[in-house]
Amino acid sequence: MYSFNNDYSECAHPRILDAIVHANLEQNNCYSQDVHTAHAIQLIHREIEDNTADIHIIPGGTQTNLLVIGSALRPHQAVIAAETGHINVHETGAIEATGHKVLTAASPDGKLTPDLVKQILDSHTDEHMVMPKMVYISNTTEIGTQYTLAELTSLFLFCKKRHLYLFMDGARMGAALTSPANDLTLARIAELTDIFYIGGTKNGAMCGEALVILNPALKEDFRFLMKQRGAMFAKGFILGIQFKELFTDSLFYDLARHSNQMAAILRKGIEECGYAFDSQSVSNQLFPILPDSILPRLSEEFLFSVQKKTDDSHTVIRLVTSWATREEETHRFVRLLKSLSQPNP
Amino acid sequence: MYSFNNDYSECAHPRILDAIVHANLEQNNCYSQDVHTAHAIQLIHREIEDNTADIHIIPGGTQTNLLVIGSALRPHQAVIAAETGHINVHETGAIEATGHKVLTAASPDGKLTPDLVKQILDSHTDEHMVMPKMVYISNTTEIGTQYTLAELTSLFLFCKKRHLYLFMDGARMGAALTSPANDLTLARIAELTDIFYIGGTKNGAMCGEALVILNPALKEDFRFLMKQRGAMFAKGFILGIQFKELFTDSLFYDLARHSNQMAAILRKGIEECGYAFDSQSVSNQLFPILPDSILPRLSEEFLFSVQKKTDDSHTVIRLVTSWATREEETHRFVRLLKSLSQPNP
Amino acid sequence: MYSFNNDYSECAHPRILDAIVHANLEQNNCYSQDVHTAHAIQLIHREIEDNTADIHIIPGGTQTNLLVIGSALRPHQAVIAAETGHINVHETGAIEATGHKVLTAASPDGKLTPDLVKQILDSHTDEHMVMPKMVYISNTTEIGTQYTLAELTSLFLFCKKRHLYLFMDGARMGAALTSPANDLTLARIAELTDIFYIGGTKNGAMCGEALVILNPALKEDFRFLMKQRGAMFAKGFILGIQFKELFTDSLFYDLARHSNQMAAILRKGIEECGYAFDSQSVSNQLFPILPDSILPRLSEEFLFSVQKKTDDSHTVIRLVTSWATREEETHRFVRLLKSLSQPNP
Amino acid sequence: MYSFNNDYSECAHPRILDAIVHANLEQNNCYSQDVHTAHAIQLIHREIEDNTADIHIIPGGTQTNLLVIGSALRPHQAVIAAETGHINVHETGAIEATGHKVLTAASPDGKLTPDLVKQILDSHTDEHMVMPKMVYISNTTEIGTQYTLAELTSLFLFCKKRHLYLFMDGARMGAALTSPANDLTLARIAELTDIFYIGGTKNGAMCGEALVILNPALKEDFRFLMKQRGAMFAKGFILGIQFKELFTDSLFYDLARHSNQMAAILRKGIEECGYAFDSQSVSNQLFPILPDSILPRLSEEFLFSVQKKTDDSHTVIRLVTSWATREEETHRFVRLLKSLSQPNP
Repeated sequence: MYSFNNDYSECAHPRILDAIVHANLEQNNCYSQDVHTAHAIQLIHREIEDNTADIHIIPGGTQTNLLVIGSALRPHQAVIAAETGHINVHETGAIEATGHKVLTAASPDGKLTPDLVKQILDSHTDEHMVMPKMVYISNTTEIGTQYTLAELTSLFLFCKKRHLYLFMDGARMGAALTSPANDLTLARIAELTDIFYIGGTKNGAMCGEALVILNPALKEDFRFLMKQRGAMFAKGFILGIQFKELFTDSLFYDLARHSNQMAAILRKGIEECGYAFDSQSVSNQLFPILPDSILPRLSEEFLFSVQKKTDDSHTVIRLVTSWATREEETHRFVRLLKSLSQPNP
Repeated sequence: MYSFNNDYSECAHPRILDAIVHANLEQNNCYSQDVHTAHAIQLIHREIEDNTADIHIIPGGTQTNLLVIGSALRPHQAVIAAETGHINVHETGAIEATGHKVLTAASPDGKLTPDLVKQILDSHTDEHMVMPKMVYISNTTEIGTQYTLAELTSLFLFCKKRHLYLFMDGARMGAALTSPANDLTLARIAELTDIFYIGGTKNGAMCGEALVILNPALKEDFRFLMKQRGAMFAKGFILGIQFKELFTDSLFYDLARHSNQMAAILRKGIEECGYAFDSQSVSNQLFPILPDSILPRLSEEFLFSVQKKTDDSHTVIRLVTSWATREEETHRFVRLLKSLSQPNP
Repeated sequence: MYSFNNDYSECAHPRILDAIVHANLEQNNCYSQDVHTAHAIQLIHREIEDNTADIHIIPGGTQTNLLVIGSALRPHQAVIAAETGHINVHETGAIEATGHKVLTAASPDGKLTPDLVKQILDSHTDEHMVMPKMVYISNTTEIGTQYTLAELTSLFLFCKKRHLYLFMDGARMGAALTSPANDLTLARIAELTDIFYIGGTKNGAMCGEALVILNPALKEDFRFLMKQRGAMFAKGFILGIQFKELFTDSLFYDLARHSNQMAAILRKGIEECGYAFDSQSVSNQLFPILPDSILPRLSEEFLFSVQKKTDDSHTVIRLVTSWATREEETHRFVRLLKSLSQPNP
Repeated sequence: MYSFNNDYSECAHPRILDAIVHANLEQNNCYSQDVHTAHAIQLIHREIEDNTADIHIIPGGTQTNLLVIGSALRPHQAVIAAETGHINVHETGAIEATGHKVLTAASPDGKLTPDLVKQILDSHTDEHMVMPKMVYISNTTEIGTQYTLAELTSLFLFCKKRHLYLFMDGARMGAALTSPANDLTLARIAELTDIFYIGGTKNGAMCGEALVILNPALKEDFRFLMKQRGAMFAKGFILGIQFKELFTDSLFYDLARHSNQMAAILRKGIEECGYAFDSQSVSNQLFPILPDSILPRLSEEFLFSVQKKTDDSHTVIRLVTSWATREEETHRFVRLLKSLSQPNP
C-alpha cells in the first residue's frame, strides 16, 4: 500500500531533521527570538528582495490563516475567498470563530479575479452588511491551479484601488513556484500582496509556515496576536532551523520540483488512459475522473481521497505527490491504472 | 411624499402608546421581572397553547437572532439559512461575530426544504468542516413568501431526525399568520419549531420581539445570555406592556391583517398594469418589476427601496405596507402607476 | 410599598412620553437617520460645544459599553477599570464576550487615577500579556462618587501621554453634573475624554444613551458596529425624540437635580440617625450601613437592595432616587428610620 | 554564559529525536489518526489506569488552555484561576479572546482551595454576573508550588458538589510528580480532575501536551474544536512518536527527576548563602531573593529572568532547570553565588 493521500504523510526531509539533530543540545532563546530564526528571516528577506518585511514563522496553516485574518480586520469587516477556499471549507469555521464572515465567489478554477471581487463589493453597500476588507487567495489553489504574474498583478492593483488587503495562502507555495506554468517568484509575490506565507509543512518541513508581512498596517503588535492565538511556539528555534535549511540553498525549490515531477508522471499516465481531470492542475495535486469500476482495485494498492461523483459511474479522486514521493510508486500506479483500463478482449 | 419603504416608519399603534402612557408613573420591577411582562407571557402561553415554553421579550430582531444562535451552538457548530436569509445578508455579520458560520442554500422562493438542508449536511462530513446544528428560517421570508403547515411539518420532522434545531425568525410573523395563503397558527408553530419569535417592531409595537423557547435544551440560563448581549432592557416592563396589549384581544392579528390588505390593493393595481413580480408574495412586502422609465415620477410621490436590475430597462422595487398604512395612499399609488403605464396615444 | 431600588422603575418623564405621542403617526426615516435624531444631535453638539463629535443614540448601557470597547480595541488589547466598574461586575462578561480582558484596579472610592492606571501599565510589559489600551471610568461611579475637573484633567493627560483612550460611562451623567460636588460640564468632559455617553435610561427617558465620539480614531464605521451588535434600533427616531426633549431646554438637568435633591433628604435623615455610609456619595445613590435589626421593618415599607455585610450585625444597603421619586416618600422613609432608630425608652 | 531562563531552551531529549529520525520516511495517517499516536494513547491509558479517557496531543500549552476552556464553557460562563495563573497573566488574553472571563483569587502560594473558590461563587449570584463553571489550576504552579493528594481531593470534591469542572494545567506535570513533596500519581490525578494535561514541551519533547479528558461532558466533538483553533497538527504523528517515547518506559519521570535534582543543588547552595525565597518551591523553578549588588556579576555568567523588586536593594529572580541542565553548571552557579556572597574581608 502506497499513499498519494497528501503531501504531509512523512516527517521531514533528512537534511531538515539533520539540522535539528545537529542543534539539539544548544541553548536557544525562546519564542522565536533565537539566532536560527533570525538567520532564516535573513535568508527569506534575500529571497523576497525586501528586507523591510516582518517575518514570523507560525507552526501551522489554519493557525496562520485565522491569525492573519483575525488580526487584520475590524469586527465588521469580512474576507473574500473562492468557494473552494481552504478557509471557507476546511478549517471548521476558524475564521468565523475570530468573528469574521467569509464572503465567497463561485470560481470554477479556484482563483479570484477583479471581476469576481467587484461583484461582491457591489453587493455590499451599506452598514447593514459586512464590509469586505481582505481578499484571500491560495497559490497553488485547493484544486491545484495557480496564479500567473498577469493575474496576480491585476488582482493586486484592483485590491489597492479598492482599499482591500490581498493575502496569499502559500501552504503549497513551493508547488506553485516550481510548476511548468509558473512565471512568479517570491520577490514578485512580495511586491504583489500585502501579506503571504511560504508553506513548510507540505514541502519537507516537520511543521512551519513563514508569514511575510509587507503592508505596514498589518505589522503592528503581531507578536501579541501570535501569543494570544497559541501560535507562538515556545521552541520557536525549531521552526527557524527548518526554514534556514530550506532557504540556505535551493532545497525549498528542489523538494517542490520533485513533487511536481512525480505528479507529472501520474498525469501523463492518466491522460494516456484517456481519463479527464476535474481541474487543470500542473502542480502536485491531481483530480482525475475515473470509472467507479476500477476504484476498488486501485484502493487495494494505493491510498487516495475520494472527492465527489460526477455521474452514476464516475468519481473524482485526488492524488497528491510530495517531496518524499518515490518515483517507482508513480510508475507502479500508472501501470496498474493502464492494466485496469484496457478494453476487455 | 408617502413612504412604502418599510413597516417600521411610524412609532406605535395608539392603543399601545396609550397603554404605556397609562402605566407611566407606576414603579415596576426591572429587567423584565415585572407584572406586565408576566401577564404578556401568560397571554402568549395561551396563544401558543403551551404554558411550558420559556418566553423572553427582546428589544430588537438582530439582537434576538444573534442571542439565539450564539446561545444554542457550541463553537464548532453552524447555522443553515437561505441565501436571502436576514442573518446572512443584513445583519453586518452579527452571527459570525458570535463565532459561528452561516451556511447557505440558494432558494428561489427564500424558503428552506429538507432537501436543501440535506445537501448541506451531506457535504459536511468530518471535523475539518463546521457541524451544521441549527436551521434558521423566516416567516414571512425576506422576500415575502411564507411557510405552509405541510412545509413546516416536513422541515421540522427532518430536523428532528437529524438532530438539528429549527429556529423561526418571526419578525413578520403577523403578516404571515394573516395572509390569505396561511394555514398555520402560533400553536402549530410552537409544535413545529424548537424556538421562534413573534415580531412586535414590524407590527405596531415601538420595539420588542417575543422569543418563545420550546426545546428545553435551549432554555438554560437564557437570561445570562440576554444580559451579556445587552438584550436585557432595564425597563423591560415597557416591552411587556406592549405585548400584553397586542395579545389582550386580537390587536396583533388585526394590525397585520390591515397591513396585508393594504398590500393586496397595491398588488392588484400592479397586476392590472400588467407588471410581474420578482417573488410571489401574498403578504405585506411586494417586489414588482417596473420599467425604469416610470421610476423617477413614482419617486416624486412615494418612497420605496430599489432592489436590483432585471434587465437594461427594468428594476425590481420593494413596496412595504404596515399596520399604519393609509388606504387612500395605496389607491393614490395605484392611480399614479396606472397613469404612468398607459400606452402613449 | 415604595421603591428606592433603582432609578429606572418608572417609564419616562411625561414630557418625553408626550413628545413621542405627538410624533406617533409621522413617517420617519429608520435606523436613526431621521430628523428628530438629527435635531437631538444638534442640541447635544451645542451642549458639548463641539459640533465635530460623532453622536449615536444607543438603546442600552451594556450595549453601549460592549460596542465602544469591542470597536476600539484590537484583539490583544485590554480595557482598564476599577474593580467596582460596571463592565467588570455587572454585565455578565459582555466585554470578554467581545474578546477583551478587563484589567482591574482596587479603588476604595470607585475612581481611577493616573497612579492606579500606571501600576497596571507597569506590569504589562511584553507580548505575553495583554496590552492595556483603554481606560473605562463611570461618572457618577457605581458607588455614587464622581470625578472633579482636576481629577479628570489629570487622568486624561496621563492617558494621552500613554496612548490610552479614555472612555466615560455616563449612565448616571445627569446625577454627576447636578450634584453639589460637581465642577464639570458636558463641554469640559468632551474636552477631557475620547468618548463618553450621556445616560437617558436612568434620567427620565424610556431608553437611550447618547454616545459622543470625540477621537477621530474611534469614529470610523461606527454604524457598522452598531448594526452588528444589534444596537441600531429600527425605530431610532424614538430615541432621537427623547434626547431632543431632554436637551431642548434644561429638562435633562432638572430631572437629575430632583433626583439628587431627593437623595439629599434621605442622606440628611440617615446622618441624623447617626448612621455611617460605605461610600461618600453626594449623588442619587446612597450606601448607608444600617443595623440588621431594623431591616425587616424597613423592608415592609420600602424596596431597596442589600449590598453586603460589614460585621455580624450591620449591613450596607443601597437606596436610589430618581427623577420620579416623590418627595413625601423620602420624608416617610426618614421618619420610619428615625422611629426605628430611637433608643428604647 | 549558561541559561537558567526556562525549561524549553533545548530542542528535545536525544531518545525522542532518535525516535523521530527512526520513523522519518514512514507514511503515516495525518491529523493524529496514526499508529504512533494510538500507541502513545494506549501507554497513557495504562499510566492513568483508565482506558475510557479521551486523549488528544496538542502542539502547545496556550493552545491547550484556550481550547479546553473555550470548548467547555457556554458564553456566559467563566473560569476561576489563581491571580498568578498562566491563563490570567501570560497568555495575552487568550481565554478572553474565546469570550470568557477569568475570575481570579489572590493566593500567596499560587494554589486554589475550596474556600477561595467558594468566595468567588458567593459573589456571583445572578444573571447580571458571569457564572463560574470551571476551576483552572496548574501543577506545579507558576511559582513552583504543587498540590498534594489531600488538597486536590478536597478541591475536586468541592467542585463536584458545586457543579464546577476542575481543569489541571500540567505543563510542568513531570516536575510535580517527581518532586520530593509529591504524593500524587497520574492515576490519582485522573480520578481527581475532569480534564488535565501532561506537558511534553517543558519535559524533553520538542512540543506537545497530552490532554486527558475524563468527564464525558467535555469529550464531545473535541476534534472539531481542535481543528477550529488550529490545534490539529497535520503531522500529528510527530507528537505521537514523542509521547510514545516518553511513556514507553520511565523516560518522562527520569527527565523530570533530573530537572528537580538540578534545582535542588541550586536551592541548597542559595540557602547556604543565607538567601530566602519568594515562594516555597521544591520543584524545578526557584525564586530566590538576592541582593541587587550581586546581580550584574551573576548576569555575566548566567541567564535568568528578573521577577520583581522586594525592597530597595533586593530582587526576586527566577532560576529554572530542565531535563537538559548540566550538573556542572549548577555547581558553577553555586560557587559563583557563594563567592559573591562572602562578607568583604
